[in-house]
Amino acid sequence: MAPPTPRLVVSVDLKKKPWEQALPLHNRWHPEIPPVAHVKVSEVFRVEMVDWTGSVIKDDDSAADVKFIDLSTVHYLSGPIRVVDKNETPAMPGDLLAVEICNLGPLPGDEWGYTATFDRENGGGFLTDHFPCATKAIWYFEGIYAYSPHIPGVRFPGLTHPGIIGTAPSMELLNIWNEREREVEENGHKSLKLCEVLHSRPLANLPSTKGCHLGKIKKGTAEWEKIAKEAARTIPGRENGGNCDIKNLSRGSKIYLPVFVEGANLSTGDMHFSQGDGEVSFCGAIEMSGFLELKCEIIRGGMKEYLTPMGPTPLHVNPIFEIGPVEPRFSEWLVFEGISVDESGRQHFLDASVAYKRAVLNAIDYLSKFGYSKEQVYLLLSCCPCEGRISGIVDAPNAVATLAIPTAIFDQDIRPKAGKVPIGPRLVRKPDVLRCSYDGNLPTTKNPAASM
Amino acid sequence: MAPPTPRLVVSVDLKKKPWEQALPLHNRWHPEIPPVAHVKVSEVFRVEMVDWTGSVIKDDDSAADVKFIDLSTVHYLSGPIRVVDKNETPAMPGDLLAVEICNLGPLPGDEWGYTATFDRENGGGFLTDHFPCATKAIWYFEGIYAYSPHIPGVRFPGLTHPGIIGTAPSMELLNIWNEREREVEENGHKSLKLCEVLHSRPLANLPSTKGCHLGKIKKGTAEWEKIAKEAARTIPGRENGGNCDIKNLSRGSKIYLPVFVEGANLSTGDMHFSQGDGEVSFCGAIEMSGFLELKCEIIRGGMKEYLTPMGPTPLHVNPIFEIGPVEPRFSEWLVFEGISVDESGRQHFLDASVAYKRAVLNAIDYLSKFGYSKEQVYLLLSCCPCEGRISGIVDAPNAVATLAIPTAIFDQDIRPKAGKVPIGPRLVRKPDVLRCSYDGNLPTTKNPAASM
Amino acid sequence: MAPPTPRLVVSVDLKKKPWEQALPLHNRWHPEIPPVAHVKVSEVFRVEMVDWTGSVIKDDDSAADVKFIDLSTVHYLSGPIRVVDKNETPAMPGDLLAVEICNLGPLPGDEWGYTATFDRENGGGFLTDHFPCATKAIWYFEGIYAYSPHIPGVRFPGLTHPGIIGTAPSMELLNIWNEREREVEENGHKSLKLCEVLHSRPLANLPSTKGCHLGKIKKGTAEWEKIAKEAARTIPGRENGGNCDIKNLSRGSKIYLPVFVEGANLSTGDMHFSQGDGEVSFCGAIEMSGFLELKCEIIRGGMKEYLTPMGPTPLHVNPIFEIGPVEPRFSEWLVFEGISVDESGRQHFLDASVAYKRAVLNAIDYLSKFGYSKEQVYLLLSCCPCEGRISGIVDAPNAVATLAIPTAIFDQDIRPKAGKVPIGPRLVRKPDVLRCSYDGNLPTTKNPAASM
Amino acid sequence: MAPPTPRLVVSVDLKKKPWEQALPLHNRWHPEIPPVAHVKVSEVFRVEMVDWTGSVIKDDDSAADVKFIDLSTVHYLSGPIRVVDKNETPAMPGDLLAVEICNLGPLPGDEWGYTATFDRENGGGFLTDHFPCATKAIWYFEGIYAYSPHIPGVRFPGLTHPGIIGTAPSMELLNIWNEREREVEENGHKSLKLCEVLHSRPLANLPSTKGCHLGKIKKGTAEWEKIAKEAARTIPGRENGGNCDIKNLSRGSKIYLPVFVEGANLSTGDMHFSQGDGEVSFCGAIEMSGFLELKCEIIRGGMKEYLTPMGPTPLHVNPIFEIGPVEPRFSEWLVFEGISVDESGRQHFLDASVAYKRAVLNAIDYLSKFGYSKEQVYLLLSCCPCEGRISGIVDAPNAVATLAIPTAIFDQDIRPKAGKVPIGPRLVRKPDVLRCSYDGNLPTTKNPAASM
Repeated sequence: MAPPTPRLVVSVDLKKKPWEQALPLHNRWHPEIPPVAHVKVSEVFRVEMVDWTGSVIKDDDSAADVKFIDLSTVHYLSGPIRVVDKNETPAMPGDLLAVEICNLGPLPGDEWGYTATFDRENGGGFLTDHFPCATKAIWYFEGIYAYSPHIPGVRFPGLTHPGIIGTAPSMELLNIWNEREREVEENGHKSLKLCEVLHSRPLANLPSTKGCHLGKIKKGTAEWEKIAKEAARTIPGRENGGNCDIKNLSRGSKIYLPVFVEGANLSTGDMHFSQGDGEVSFCGAIEMSGFLELKCEIIRGGMKEYLTPMGPTPLHVNPIFEIGPVEPRFSEWLVFEGISVDESGRQHFLDASVAYKRAVLNAIDYLSKFGYSKEQVYLLLSCCPCEGRISGIVDAPNAVATLAIPTAIFDQDIRPKAGKVPIGPRLVRKPDVLRCSYDGNLPTTKNPAASM
Repeated sequence: MAPPTPRLVVSVDLKKKPWEQALPLHNRWHPEIPPVAHVKVSEVFRVEMVDWTGSVIKDDDSAADVKFIDLSTVHYLSGPIRVVDKNETPAMPGDLLAVEICNLGPLPGDEWGYTATFDRENGGGFLTDHFPCATKAIWYFEGIYAYSPHIPGVRFPGLTHPGIIGTAPSMELLNIWNEREREVEENGHKSLKLCEVLHSRPLANLPSTKGCHLGKIKKGTAEWEKIAKEAARTIPGRENGGNCDIKNLSRGSKIYLPVFVEGANLSTGDMHFSQGDGEVSFCGAIEMSGFLELKCEIIRGGMKEYLTPMGPTPLHVNPIFEIGPVEPRFSEWLVFEGISVDESGRQHFLDASVAYKRAVLNAIDYLSKFGYSKEQVYLLLSCCPCEGRISGIVDAPNAVATLAIPTAIFDQDIRPKAGKVPIGPRLVRKPDVLRCSYDGNLPTTKNPAASM
Repeated sequence: MAPPTPRLVVSVDLKKKPWEQALPLHNRWHPEIPPVAHVKVSEVFRVEMVDWTGSVIKDDDSAADVKFIDLSTVHYLSGPIRVVDKNETPAMPGDLLAVEICNLGPLPGDEWGYTATFDRENGGGFLTDHFPCATKAIWYFEGIYAYSPHIPGVRFPGLTHPGIIGTAPSMELLNIWNEREREVEENGHKSLKLCEVLHSRPLANLPSTKGCHLGKIKKGTAEWEKIAKEAARTIPGRENGGNCDIKNLSRGSKIYLPVFVEGANLSTGDMHFSQGDGEVSFCGAIEMSGFLELKCEIIRGGMKEYLTPMGPTPLHVNPIFEIGPVEPRFSEWLVFEGISVDESGRQHFLDASVAYKRAVLNAIDYLSKFGYSKEQVYLLLSCCPCEGRISGIVDAPNAVATLAIPTAIFDQDIRPKAGKVPIGPRLVRKPDVLRCSYDGNLPTTKNPAASM
Repeated sequence: MAPPTPRLVVSVDLKKKPWEQALPLHNRWHPEIPPVAHVKVSEVFRVEMVDWTGSVIKDDDSAADVKFIDLSTVHYLSGPIRVVDKNETPAMPGDLLAVEICNLGPLPGDEWGYTATFDRENGGGFLTDHFPCATKAIWYFEGIYAYSPHIPGVRFPGLTHPGIIGTAPSMELLNIWNEREREVEENGHKSLKLCEVLHSRPLANLPSTKGCHLGKIKKGTAEWEKIAKEAARTIPGRENGGNCDIKNLSRGSKIYLPVFVEGANLSTGDMHFSQGDGEVSFCGAIEMSGFLELKCEIIRGGMKEYLTPMGPTPLHVNPIFEIGPVEPRFSEWLVFEGISVDESGRQHFLDASVAYKRAVLNAIDYLSKFGYSKEQVYLLLSCCPCEGRISGIVDAPNAVATLAIPTAIFDQDIRPKAGKVPIGPRLVRKPDVLRCSYDGNLPTTKNPAASM
C-alpha cells in the first residue's frame, strides 16, 4: 500500500499575519528558538511558507509598500523542524543533514509574485547608486510560466527554489557571526573601500529586537528579550546555509547541511518562483509564498567526514549541494562581460563584485535599446534565469565576470545584427514598472559618456 | 563548387621561437603593431597559434620551467589581422567586429597541454597564499578527451576556446589603460585592502620593454623603443576583449568586438583545451598551441548602436558574446559554496572574490578526501569544466559564490554518502603533480581548525 | 490584480465511479457527446481526470485486477470541453486549437501509479508472445521522483504527460475511422503478415456498446444506443490526436489540434507520470489520476493554413506539437539496437516495428544480467524515460531501431566493463513484479540460442 | 612524455580511385578479406575514409551522377583492421570489441558533402513513391556548421558520425545473412505486403560480383571469384554492426561490437557530417569523406557475458552503444506525428514504418508552406539533426511515430501562429535542389485531398 502522501508538518494561512499562524514563524537564527514540528528520516513531508515579507508587499498599483517596508522583520521562516532517525535519536552536532527537495511550488490560490528594488535609504540593491528609487513589478503564473504586466514581452519558465534553507546555529557559532559582522559594521568604511563603490548600506544587519519574531517564544518575556538581542538576522547566507539564494536549488536538489544543535532545527522560507544569479535588485527574485516537499537523511559524523573548516574554528564550514535534474532548457545565450574597472574609470584589483556590477550595467543598457526602460531590465535580470559567472579571477588587475541571458525569454530577437536596432517606431514596452520617488540626498552614479 | 577550404592566414612552426615565425608574433597591445594578415568579411580563415608562453613550458618531469618562467613575455599572440568588407573598406573605429568561431582545436602533432601554478614570487595564482609552490601537470589528448598522468582518475571532454581574442586599442584607449593600472599599482595597498587577502602580486602589470615582442616591428629601432614603453601587457581582459578567459567561447560562438583602429587589427592566442570558470591557478587552463577557424562580419557603427560606455569616455565599453551550441553535456553537479568571510574568520563586505576563494578552498578540501593531493585538486578545478557562479551579491554582508563540479569526470562516485569515505586502504592518486620548493618568505595561509 | 487562479472546469472525485462523477466521463469518441464545460481562449483552466481504467487497478498485492480487466471500458476521459473566443464565438471546423499545457501532475492525496502487462488473451502488449502473463508493478511518488517496491534499485524523475488529448471527430471522420479499422479487423490476417509476428490481438477495437460511457447521455436511451454503436474506441491515436502517447508532451508543451466540430469538444485523460517511447507493455506508462492546467487559443482557418491532408479527404490530417522546456536532464545513455530480423531468424523488409521489438528484447536480456527478472525490465522499459528511435529506414532489407536508456536511473553502473558482470553473489532485485498465471494455449516465443 | 599522436593506420588519397589506394578499400563483408592494418588495445589510431560512393558524386551543377550511379559498388570501407591485446593476442570470436570514437571530422581540404535521393528505378528512398526523381543538394562546411546553396535559409551544426562501423562476419554468420535475405528477395511480395506501401525496390541486395572490391584480394583470381559470390553487401545493418546509421554515434561514443573472426577485422566508412533519424532520402546524410580517431579495448568472452542471442543461433546478436557527451544543443522542437494509416486511407496494423512515413510527409508539406520546395524539405529532413521516435507501438491498430525538428536551424520562425503564413510576397527559397527527370513508369503517390 502507498505510504501516506507528504505529511503536512507546517501549514500557513495567508489570511493571517506571520505571528498569528498556528505554528508561529520566526525571522531570526538562534539555537533556542524551539522546534514547531518533528520529522523522521526518509519520510516525505510538506512545509508551507509565506513570502519573505509576510504579505507586506501587495498585488496592487503602487510601489509605496516597497519604499516604506520595515526590513527589520524579514525573512519570515517556517520551522524550526526537529529531525530524528528511525530510532527517534535526533540529529546531533557534527552530523550532516541531507535534505532532498522532492517538490515545491506556489501555494494553490496564491499564484503570483513580485520583484522589487528598495529605496536607497531603506535597503537598496546591487545597483542602488544608479537606481535609488523603490520600484516593483508584479508577476502572474501560468503553470510553469511567469509573465508580468509591468515588463511586457517576456515570459519564462520558473526555476523555483527556496531562497533560505538552513539549520539553527549553536551559541558558539552565533557569537562568531555577531562578532565578525559587528566588526565590519563598525570598521567597514575605514578598511574596505569596496563599499564606497557598491554604495549599499548598511554594511551589515546586526541583531535587533525591532521586528523580531521568535516562533513559539512569547514576545515580552525575559527569554524573548535575551534571544532577540542575540539572534542573528536572516539576511546573509552563512555557515548554516541560510539565505544562500542558489537559483538552481530546485526540484530534485539535495543539500548537505551541517548540524550545530540537537535535532538540527531546520528552517526554510523566502520561496522564489525564479531568480537570476546574484539576485541583483535585492528584493530580486520573483518572491512568493509556497510549499516544499522534503525528505531528510542524517549522515552521522558527516561534518568531520565531508566538510573542512575554512577558518579559525571547526564551525567555519559551508553546506554542499547537488543540483536536481529538472531545469528549464535553453540553448541560446547572449553574454555580457564586465571587468573590475568602475564607472568612474577607476581600476580595482581582481574584484569580481565590481566586474559583475559592470556586466549587469552593460546588459541593462543593451536591453534598454529594445524598448525597455532600464528599471524594467534591472528587475528582469534580477529574476529571470540568467547566469552570473566568475570567468577570470587571476589576470591582474582585472577580474572578468559574465552575465548570460537566455534569448528565448523575449518575444523579439535581441541579438546584435548588421541592420540597426529599430529606432523610429520602436516597440516601447508599456506599462513600465511601478515606481516611487527617491527623496534622499545621495548622488546617482551616471555613465558620463552615455547619451541616454 | 565549394569555396576554398579555410584560408590559412597565420601559420606557426612549433620548432621555431615566437620571434622567429614567418609572421612574427606579438605580446603587447598597441595600435601601431602592424597587421601581418588581411581577411575579408564572410570568408572562413584559419589562424594558428603557439601556447601562451611560446613553448617555454615543456612536456617533461619537472616544474622548474614553471618556477623560473619570465612572465614578461606572455602572452604570444597571432595577428594583428586587418579586416575589410567586400568593397575592401576596412573596419573603422566605432564599428563592431562580429567574429564567429567556426572551429578550433590543437595543432596536429602537438596534442598535449599543461596546467600549472606559478611560484608566489613569480606570478602566483588565486590561492597562492595557500599554495606558494610552482606545480605542473601534463595533459594528453585522446580526441575530445584529456587525461593527465599527474592527476589519475579523471578524464573529461574539452570545452576548447581561445583565452585571448581582441582588437587593437587606439592610443586614447591605451592611455586610459596605462593610467588606471599605474594608479592601482602605486596606490593599491593603501586603498584596496582586498589585495591583502588575495596575496597576489603584483597588483598590475605595467608596460615593460623587457620581454616585449612587437610583431613586424624590429627590436632595437626607435619605433620599437617607443611602442614597447607604451604597449599594454596582455594579462588582463579589457575593453578590447583580450584575455577574457570565457570558458564557453568554443565552437560556434560569436564575439562582438568594438573596433578602435582602422582594420580592427584582430589578435588572438592563449588556446585552452579546457578551463574552469575563474581559471584559478592562473596558468590554469589546459594550455596548448592550436588553431582557430574564424569568420568575420562588420556591423558599421555598431559600437554606438549596441554598446553603452560604462565609464568616463565612449571607449569604456565591453564586448558581447553568443555562446555556441556544442558543449559537453553533464547532468550531475556537486556544488560548493563560499561566503565572503576569509580564512581568518574576518568578514568582508559583499566581496564575490573572497566568497569564490572560499568556495574553491571548500572544494579542494572535500575532494582531497577521495585520495587526491590538494595540489592535484587545485590544478583540476582550474582546468576542468566546472562552473563558478555569483549566486548572491545583495545579502549584506555576505556575497555567496558557488563552484559546481560535474561528477562524471571522476572514475569514482564523489558524492557524500551515509557510509564514510573509505579511510583505511584508500585509493591514493599517484603520481602526484610535479612541484618545486617555495624559497620565499611569505607566510602560508592555513585553516587553523582543519586537521589535515 | 492577479487573474483568478486556474479555474477548475472538470473535477473528479476518486471515491466515485467514472459514471457517478458530477461531470460524467466518457470513453468513446463521437461528435454528439455533449460538452460538460466551456472555456474561453487565453484563460488558464484546470481539468482533473481519473486514471485510464477508472480505478479498476488497485494498489494491492495481486495482478488479478490486471488479468481480468474489462478493456471495453477504457479510456475514461474528462470533457468534452467547448472552446470559444473572446466574443463567445466557438472554435469551428477547419480551425486549429492550440492547447498549451501550463502545468500538470498527480491529484493531491493520490500520489501513486502502476505499470502492467495484460494477459495475452485480454489485451496483450508489444512482447506478449514472450510475456503472456498479466503482471503489475506499483509506483510511489516522492515529488518529482517515482520508485517501485516491485522493481527495486531504480528511481527516476517523471516526464509527466497526458496520454490522451484530442478533439471530437465529425461524423464524416468517425465513419472513416470505423470503416478502415473494420477492414483491417476483417482482412488483416490475410493481407498483413506483420501481425503474425507481433502476436497482438485483436487487430482493432471496433465500436461496442459494452462498457460504453457517453458522458451526459443517459444509458438506455435511444440516443445512447445509436451513439454507442457508432462511437470510436479511444485505444489508438488518430486524426484528432487522441491516444498519441507522446512522452515529451509535458509542462510547457503546445498541441495544435484540428477542429472537426463546433466548439472543438476537447477531451483528455490517461495521465502518465512517466512513459518510455513506445509504451511497450501496453498498460505501460506509470498510469495515474491527475490534473492538467491548460490554456487554449484558436487559429481560425488553421487546418488549411498549416496542415496538409495525408489521404483521400481533407480530414486525413495529424496534430502538430511543440515540446516544452522542462524535461529531466540525462547525460549518459546506453543504447540497444534491433534490426528487422525476427526471433525465428526470418528477414522482414524495412519493418521498424520488428526492429524495435528486437531492440527492446536485447535491452531486456541485457539488463536481466544485473539482477532483474525479465518481467521487471519489460515493465521498466515501458515506463522509464527511455528513447525509441527509428535510426535507419532505408537500408533494405533491415530497418534499424534503437532504444536508449538513461544510465542514471539505476543504483548500479550498468555499462559493459572489461571485468565480468558479478555472477556469484549477484544482487538479485527482490521482490519481483506481481504476476498471474497464463492459462491460454498460445505458444511462447523463445530465443532458442539463449541459455537463460 | 606525450604518447605519439594518433597513429595513422589507414590513409586515403582522394585523387585516387578506391581500388587504387595504397591500402585498398573493400565494399563487401566477408571473413576472408585480409586485414590491411593492425592496432593494439589502448592506442589511439586514425583511419581515413572516402565517401561511401568513392567520389562518384561530384560538387557540380547536375544530379545526373546520382541518377546513374552504379550502386553495386557501395559502400567503400576502410579496413579491415586487426586488433590485438598488449600481449599481441588477437581479439577472438566470442569477445566484445569496445571501440571508442575519440574524434572524427572531414578530411582537411575536402570540407563539403552532399545529400541526394536516388531515382526510383535505381535505389529509391523512403518516399520514392512520392519523389521518384534523382535529386541532389551540395553542402559546404564552415567548421562545425553546414550550409547548402541548394537549400537556402538553413544552417546547422553537424552531429558527425560514421554510418558504418562493424566487424567481419564468420562464414556461419555470413551464410545466415545470405539465406535470410535471399528468402525475402524471393518471397517478399507474396508474404509481406508492407513492401507495396513502401515501394522501395529491390527487397534486398544479394551478393554480386559486379562492382565488388575485396581489398587486398586481387580481382580475377579464383579466391576473388569465390569470395565475391559469397560476400554480403554493406547496405543493411546486421549482427556485426555495419550500416547502422545511428546519428548520435559521434565524438566520445563507444561501440561494443561482437567479434566473429580472429582479430575482429574492424571496418568503417560512410562518414556523415550530419544525419536525421531514419536517413529518409537513402543517400540521405550529408555524405562526405573523413577521418576517425579510435581506441579499442577487448572484453574477453564479452559476447556471452553481455549479449543474448535474439534468434536461432548464438550469432544472432546486436552491438551495444554508449552515446558521447558532445552533441549540438537545441531547446525548441516542432514535432510532426504519423499514424499507421497510409495515403490511400488504408489501415495498417501497428506498423511503425508506415507511421513514420506519414510523419515525414506531414513535415514536408508543412515546411513547404514556408517557401521551400518539397524536394528541399525531403533532403533537409534526411540530413538535419531531427529525431524520429516510435512514440506508441501498442495501441492497436495505430502505431504512432513522431518526427521532431529543431526550430533553430531555420532563419525564420517556423512555428504555427494565429496570423497566417505569409502568402503574397512569400520568401521563396531559391535556387532549388538539383534534379533529374524520372523516366520510369511507376505511379507517383499523391495526397488526393491536398491542394498543392
